[in-house]
Amino acid sequence: MTVRIAVIGAGIMGADHARIVAEDLPGACLQVVCDMDGARARGVAETLGAVDTATDPGAVIARDDVDAVIVASPDATHADLSISCIRAGKPVMCEKPLSASSDDCLRVMEAEQASGTRLVQVGFMRRFDQSYVEMKAALDEGILGRALMMHNFHRNVATPNADFTGAMAITNSAPHEFDVARHVLGAEYASIWAAQPTRSDDRVAPVVMVLRTTGGQLVNIEINNNAAYGYDVRGELVGEAGSVSMAPVLHSRLDSALSNSSRYDADWRGRYAEAYRRQNRAFLRFVETGRFPDIAASAWDGYAAALVAETGVKALATGNTEPVRMIDRPAFYA
Amino acid sequence: MTVRIAVIGAGIMGADHARIVAEDLPGACLQVVCDMDGARARGVAETLGAVDTATDPGAVIARDDVDAVIVASPDATHADLSISCIRAGKPVMCEKPLSASSDDCLRVMEAEQASGTRLVQVGFMRRFDQSYVEMKAALDEGILGRALMMHNFHRNVATPNADFTGAMAITNSAPHEFDVARHVLGAEYASIWAAQPTRSDDRVAPVVMVLRTTGGQLVNIEINNNAAYGYDVRGELVGEAGSVSMAPVLHSRLDSALSNSSRYDADWRGRYAEAYRRQNRAFLRFVETGRFPDIAASAWDGYAAALVAETGVKALATGNTEPVRMIDRPAFYA
Amino acid sequence: MTVRIAVIGAGIMGADHARIVAEDLPGACLQVVCDMDGARARGVAETLGAVDTATDPGAVIARDDVDAVIVASPDATHADLSISCIRAGKPVMCEKPLSASSDDCLRVMEAEQASGTRLVQVGFMRRFDQSYVEMKAALDEGILGRALMMHNFHRNVATPNADFTGAMAITNSAPHEFDVARHVLGAEYASIWAAQPTRSDDRVAPVVMVLRTTGGQLVNIEINNNAAYGYDVRGELVGEAGSVSMAPVLHSRLDSALSNSSRYDADWRGRYAEAYRRQNRAFLRFVETGRFPDIAASAWDGYAAALVAETGVKALATGNTEPVRMIDRPAFYA
Amino acid sequence: MTVRIAVIGAGIMGADHARIVAEDLPGACLQVVCDMDGARARGVAETLGAVDTATDPGAVIARDDVDAVIVASPDATHADLSISCIRAGKPVMCEKPLSASSDDCLRVMEAEQASGTRLVQVGFMRRFDQSYVEMKAALDEGILGRALMMHNFHRNVATPNADFTGAMAITNSAPHEFDVARHVLGAEYASIWAAQPTRSDDRVAPVVMVLRTTGGQLVNIEINNNAAYGYDVRGELVGEAGSVSMAPVLHSRLDSALSNSSRYDADWRGRYAEAYRRQNRAFLRFVETGRFPDIAASAWDGYAAALVAETGVKALATGNTEPVRMIDRPAFYA
Ligand SMILES: [Mg+2]
Ligand SMILES: [Mg+2]
Ligand SMILES: [Mg+2]
Ligand SMILES: [Mg+2]
Repeated sequence: MTVRIAVIGAGIMGADHARIVAEDLPGACLQVVCDMDGARARGVAETLGAVDTATDPGAVIARDDVDAVIVASPDATHADLSISCIRAGKPVMCEKPLSASSDDCLRVMEAEQASGTRLVQVGFMRRFDQSYVEMKAALDEGILGRALMMHNFHRNVATPNADFTGAMAITNSAPHEFDVARHVLGAEYASIWAAQPTRSDDRVAPVVMVLRTTGGQLVNIEINNNAAYGYDVRGELVGEAGSVSMAPVLHSRLDSALSNSSRYDADWRGRYAEAYRRQNRAFLRFVETGRFPDIAASAWDGYAAALVAETGVKALATGNTEPVRMIDRPAFYA
Repeated sequence: MTVRIAVIGAGIMGADHARIVAEDLPGACLQVVCDMDGARARGVAETLGAVDTATDPGAVIARDDVDAVIVASPDATHADLSISCIRAGKPVMCEKPLSASSDDCLRVMEAEQASGTRLVQVGFMRRFDQSYVEMKAALDEGILGRALMMHNFHRNVATPNADFTGAMAITNSAPHEFDVARHVLGAEYASIWAAQPTRSDDRVAPVVMVLRTTGGQLVNIEINNNAAYGYDVRGELVGEAGSVSMAPVLHSRLDSALSNSSRYDADWRGRYAEAYRRQNRAFLRFVETGRFPDIAASAWDGYAAALVAETGVKALATGNTEPVRMIDRPAFYA
Repeated sequence: MTVRIAVIGAGIMGADHARIVAEDLPGACLQVVCDMDGARARGVAETLGAVDTATDPGAVIARDDVDAVIVASPDATHADLSISCIRAGKPVMCEKPLSASSDDCLRVMEAEQASGTRLVQVGFMRRFDQSYVEMKAALDEGILGRALMMHNFHRNVATPNADFTGAMAITNSAPHEFDVARHVLGAEYASIWAAQPTRSDDRVAPVVMVLRTTGGQLVNIEINNNAAYGYDVRGELVGEAGSVSMAPVLHSRLDSALSNSSRYDADWRGRYAEAYRRQNRAFLRFVETGRFPDIAASAWDGYAAALVAETGVKALATGNTEPVRMIDRPAFYA
Repeated sequence: MTVRIAVIGAGIMGADHARIVAEDLPGACLQVVCDMDGARARGVAETLGAVDTATDPGAVIARDDVDAVIVASPDATHADLSISCIRAGKPVMCEKPLSASSDDCLRVMEAEQASGTRLVQVGFMRRFDQSYVEMKAALDEGILGRALMMHNFHRNVATPNADFTGAMAITNSAPHEFDVARHVLGAEYASIWAAQPTRSDDRVAPVVMVLRTTGGQLVNIEINNNAAYGYDVRGELVGEAGSVSMAPVLHSRLDSALSNSSRYDADWRGRYAEAYRRQNRAFLRFVETGRFPDIAASAWDGYAAALVAETGVKALATGNTEPVRMIDRPAFYA
């Protein structure tokens, strides 16, 4: 039986999700593309052969011919739309962040727990990326011994807008790192410290963070939004007996002009295309079976990412190590 | 409108193709799984939710509810089943080889030309592999200057059966290399020379071949079916101005016990999973549009591979450089 | 004219220096090997064909047939022996650290300045390592734009003794990183922050440090003395326009047993053999010409390393960012 | 006791050897630099502090103050000068080739055997290169099982002169590959086959050779003197149980402009600087001890290289597999 999916938001992320539903999710149907901007919704829908378009997300969530929802609208709408889906009893995959506000994330969790059923998957697709899968497998298989540290480097060519700040690097870019390190380590954060070097221009400088988990592990994160040279994500998981590092995914190397070289992408979409595909397939199986995917992020994970980001912004401002004060994990999310 | 595909042959390759149709080809439906062994057909069909099963390929090809056919039955049946598809006016993707006999390939070409329509795609999936796509792109973009040589290395852990011979390495394993080098270079072969080193046991030794194209390029191929260490394919395209090499697709590297290492697969399926998916999607688009895919292999390519393999077997026996005597390329395949 | 060199200390480092003098410094002569343990001095001297042996370093420094001195005795003796060399007017290459105490380093500087002549080279051989030479060249050539950060990772298989502490990691191992990052960046440190993860056993855990330079750059250092998998040093210099990373020096890779691998050394000596050779050749030229080598470390650099190490120990204890309070750089060391 | 060495020939190779003797061979003295062009000899001698210069090689070889000779004069003089050294009872290290003529090599061997003493080392320095040392060690340690094949790629940016031919590639460039593969495999050649692709201009095209050893192993060689992109030597030793590949020696990698890259040298001197140093040190020890170095090339090896090159030139002309007809190995060279 085909699962009829509505995609809310037809911007870059929404269009990508709609494309995956239409072209890479056998068993799913792109039922509705919804965007405040009806023309934009129709543009995406037409290209991909969606059944219908809409401009009112609330009405879309309520439709009988919609079995599940992907939320890829502006960040500020994520929490409320997720709560609407919960109230409609429909599984939702919400793009990250679940909310920039940890309090809003708590509201989503409360609604979900009140419903009695797991309904919310959060779009931290990195967990599905093969590099992290292999890191986690090496840890779980015992090859590395106990995990001690994780080093994470996230680099973009340039910030989209000139007034991007270090705080925005923490709230917008770092949550992927916050989440995937938590996921790989199977741990929660206890504290965070942050600093930035000084650039010669007015672009945002890299943010360097050192987090400690409740198990005493260190997670080091560099977010460099103006790295200039390319889109590049690196990671290393350091254990007591060994270490596993992310390898860049290459298909060829060029010898030319006294140089041996491989190319970087200019943005992130190629790097994680397969992870998005896997994530959305996991969501489809979740809808079909009601069983929450083992490795997917939940509302609890969305809350954790939001809270550590909020605390990181504070740490960057104070220069001190700031404690991450999470609520106890509800049994519902155990 | 859904394309209803029958898969003929439910062995390893057939089951893989059926799985791709069922799970990775939105717009296609796995209509029939056909195998002489009805139980095997039913096993695959059930797992994948095929509409029907069958044991008679001829009847399957004739069915009104079958729009297109994938042939993955034993090699000896490929040519005749392809001809049956042609006569039924149905697009067929035939696993490699189209036939081990170049004469049989000519028969397929004659039938296809007589039908007046392109209907036959041959399963040389390497053309869709990203490494070769990047090699060809580097050549076509002029970065490498004129192509001079291509080096190709194909290594398996071990031959499936003990009585595998050097001739079989040429007819069974090398055609992938023959085809993809022709494809990347955009050239035909003029001659082939072959030799084998001596092993200390009775397993088949590697076969080393040097082919010359009609444009004077050299194609060097090593087929090592008992390489022991892993499944490994390497390639390098050498031009007058530069060179491009295949990079192994890695996602992580392990530091442990005084060693930094990456893993090899034990067989070929992981390495080319994405190439098969791309190839079968190209076939689906071919069925939908009637337009033969730019980079797919045709019956002409199947013929070229069979003829050079036959000539290679002769070259290995004589120790001489043997001419590859192809017919002129019919305008139909231009 | 041959330069007659005395090596003081015949332990592992001293024996290595003596071997370089004897076998890799044409123009130099291994005049005296001196060690409190006369038998150990004689053992090294005999193997290498030294002219003489001794047990009293003060007397050795005073000898007329000694033109220059290499100090590789226990750390606590470094400063006083260097001062003795200064007073004797003889060039000295002192193994790192010049002293564990920054005050002692200041005493050496005062003596050297009082002598009116540059006489002291400190054995921070990393500056001569080709990887750092290339990093610094990339920076100086402008390829990287302004330097923003340097990431440094130092890993040993295991600590020599079980009661090694995090403070010792900072005072014994980290000075190489402190010095080489200062050297590559051409900067002084303004502050340091430090933390350690928790291990499951009682071995010393890694120490993670974040330093800020007076120019606002960040230097991140991981010292992992029980990394288990091998001796491994990594580094990356991140600029505003690009980045340059240390590459491991490999000569071959092995394909075996479903793995592609390269080997790590079990200790540091192979990794830096060429750097030691280059450093000692630079010292010989210094002795011959009186001109202090451009890239060698001076007493000032020894002081800087000691002071930042002292501050780092404090930072590890307090958990706070601690200011590095250096004296102003004397014109003598400009 | 210092070994007084005369270097005959003060061109690029001779000057390099003289520099190694002067600066990198403690225990040796650069006694004489000899060149037909006296000014050139004096130029090199002055730079390096040689004791004397000369223009007559015969007289140099006869001098009482010359203990050993390095021959780096034009190729055509190598054999006769080596014979002169033999007759004078003085050890000689002769640059490759010992002679382009295998008959001349036989004359050297006869003179050496008549002298009753091993006196001739041939300058195939690749044997001392760490990559080949590791390949041979992997083979000797049994990690690879029996050796089956060796792949060798030699690439230069461009030929020095426009009228360089395929035959010259075989006689001038390939001997390094011929020798080092014989050395690593511990085998003699039985036959050789050769071919060239066609270039679009009049520069010499690559030469591809397949040699068979008397043990049935295949040695594949590509000599590409106009590879354009850089100086590059690659090699792989393929055994029945595994494979070992040469790794390029890198010290850093650059991230810049959507590319991750490492640099190639424009010529061979950096790549083999350490191998030349090791080779010449082995020669010095040979002179000191009279014991021929285990891994150095002898006159027999010089003969083997010349003969297979002569046969290779023939094979390239005929297009046939040509037998390599070596004399039996004299017991003297066992
Ligand atoms: Mg996301
Ligand atoms: Mg195939
Ligand atoms: Mg040192
Ligand atoms: Mg040579």
